[in-house]
Amino acid sequence: MLENKNTSKTSISELGEFGLIDHLTKNFKIKQKTTIKGIGDDAAVLSVNSEEQIVVTTDLLVEGVHFDLGYMPIKHLGYKAVVVNLSDVYAMNAKATQITVSIAVSNRFSVEALEELYSGIAMAAKYYKIDVIGGDTTSSTTGLFISITAIGLVKEKDIVYRDGAKENDLLVVTGDLGAAYLGLQVLEREKRVFQVNPNSQPDLDAYTYLIERQLKPEARRDISELLSNLNVKPTSMIDISDGLSSEIIHICKSSNVGCNLYEDKIPLDPQVISTCEEFKLDSTTIALSGGEDYELLFTIDNKDFSKIKTNPNFTVIGHITNKKEGIHLITRANTKIPLKARGWKALIEDS
Amino acid sequence: MLENKNTSKTSISELGEFGLIDHLTKNFKIKQKTTIKGIGDDAAVLSVNSEEQIVVTTDLLVEGVHFDLGYMPIKHLGYKAVVVNLSDVYAMNAKATQITVSIAVSNRFSVEALEELYSGIAMAAKYYKIDVIGGDTTSSTTGLFISITAIGLVKEKDIVYRDGAKENDLLVVTGDLGAAYLGLQVLEREKRVFQVNPNSQPDLDAYTYLIERQLKPEARRDISELLSNLNVKPTSMIDISDGLSSEIIHICKSSNVGCNLYEDKIPLDPQVISTCEEFKLDSTTIALSGGEDYELLFTIDNKDFSKIKTNPNFTVIGHITNKKEGIHLITRANTKIPLKARGWKALIEDS
Repeated sequence: MLENKNTSKTSISELGEFGLIDHLTKNFKIKQKTTIKGIGDDAAVLSVNSEEQIVVTTDLLVEGVHFDLGYMPIKHLGYKAVVVNLSDVYAMNAKATQITVSIAVSNRFSVEALEELYSGIAMAAKYYKIDVIGGDTTSSTTGLFISITAIGLVKEKDIVYRDGAKENDLLVVTGDLGAAYLGLQVLEREKRVFQVNPNSQPDLDAYTYLIERQLKPEARRDISELLSNLNVKPTSMIDISDGLSSEIIHICKSSNVGCNLYEDKIPLDPQVISTCEEFKLDSTTIALSGGEDYELLFTIDNKDFSKIKTNPNFTVIGHITNKKEGIHLITRANTKIPLKARGWKALIEDS
Repeated sequence: MLENKNTSKTSISELGEFGLIDHLTKNFKIKQKTTIKGIGDDAAVLSVNSEEQIVVTTDLLVEGVHFDLGYMPIKHLGYKAVVVNLSDVYAMNAKATQITVSIAVSNRFSVEALEELYSGIAMAAKYYKIDVIGGDTTSSTTGLFISITAIGLVKEKDIVYRDGAKENDLLVVTGDLGAAYLGLQVLEREKRVFQVNPNSQPDLDAYTYLIERQLKPEARRDISELLSNLNVKPTSMIDISDGLSSEIIHICKSSNVGCNLYEDKIPLDPQVISTCEEFKLDSTTIALSGGEDYELLFTIDNKDFSKIKTNPNFTVIGHITNKKEGIHLITRANTKIPLKARGWKALIEDS
């Protein structure tokens, strides 16, 4: 673990709770004009003009459940914890503006390890142009817990919910799918190899994209502006955190519609295809259930197809049907299979 | 523990993560007109008119650090977790409007135990007229973690920060102090007695107020309106979560002033005085460092004294001085002692 690499380590108790919060957050600068007061009072204060609505989302990440510091550098963890939350803000077609960050840590973590964690958080805050406006730091009996709440702004007319998909809309996805899950498989394999032979020198060149998608994912903050420039407003949108199937089912259930998803349209990176072959995994299953892609899935009116069809960021993967027709995958062999929600945990248990 | 009293228990895995969130939050109704969308999308959506500013605060509560389910009924814990956060909103002179609630739980907790937890959260939401607009539910390797983010609204002209206290202002506190800490001492003593003799029948009549302040504290949502009706705007305000000394020091440091606090003015309930005698504790120390009172501490211009002096909710306990004079307690014996911040954890370690 990264936190053990520090030559001199400071225990958290040396700083105390107040000292620790001050120490970790002292470099956070306020940049958003809507942030009136950041860290340092009973609450942060924001000022929003009445044209804009506020979106609020929260995620809790638990060591041993959502991440493993055995292969996840703690700085990357800080970065990813922010990205995961921002992805939900972007899925509302909103602009992310502020976050709060609370952590609970056991005494196994040094102050230097937490500095690394916060430097990852600060890096994400800088890249995504958001303010860190508050949080809480406390001890835990075991492990690391990170709770982040993200806030964003969006004009009422621009907001996109999950429930607006309608019959004949096209189903569109950004980027490509399945890479983050495969990155995790590669990292877990290397961890097992390392446990057997600590002198092994892994050659990870064939997996660089997969590993980056797992360890340093990015959220699609570009999509809102891109769609706006193309004069397209999605009818529904969701981010892909639990796998494509699960998210399609969320949109269909919320919108009270059915869907046909075409297997041959699902966008896959060449590294996903080659690594699936190597691991003897079915690439469609990985794309459907792998999760952690943090791409956006949305539906558009089919009259908007011409506006997006040549844009390399977007792939049309299916269309919305009447609810009675159900939610199906149309395979390459042209058979129709009901789509099921299987998160990545289920995938691990099965495999 | 309460969760063990259920005759039939359902394991969390029977419902699954999505099922659990839906199950626990299905009874939350949206009541605030500013809540456009609550639970059920990537993010909640709020709409605020431009006269009002938004306050945001967050707290993370950890089993074994902030609470002990050995004497804290889990429903009360849910209630208290909300109250702790609302107290910070009220300390900004704001009206609390929404919360998000994230929990991480080990498989030691049954669905029924979580239902109890959420019924406490729902009870607080109803009493304080706030909407539960989002959250996250996940597993933990050990114990229970509750992360709550609270949102409130306040007109810009009404907001009160910590940093506005000025020389000659009066230092005022609501309610009385020290009871919650003593309630904890009584409960811990009863727990030890119970461990030795499970058939013991504790007589807690002499401690009802103390125990209620520990197990079911309330936040002072009444103070903002009360002060507004008296035409008093505090120059600074903070809530008392870590003990009076610590909060006075926060106000003085933020405002760049000193303070004289008068020992004989500190408001104490008769049960605090009698229980301190019984436990051989100094009541002033308890009031200064006990914490968890969730009263409000504020400063007012001394010309406003006549407006509040007869109100039983308020006690003037000191006055603000020049920074050079420092922060002092003036004892009953008229000696001047520098005030130190000692949270309740330090108190326990010392005692």
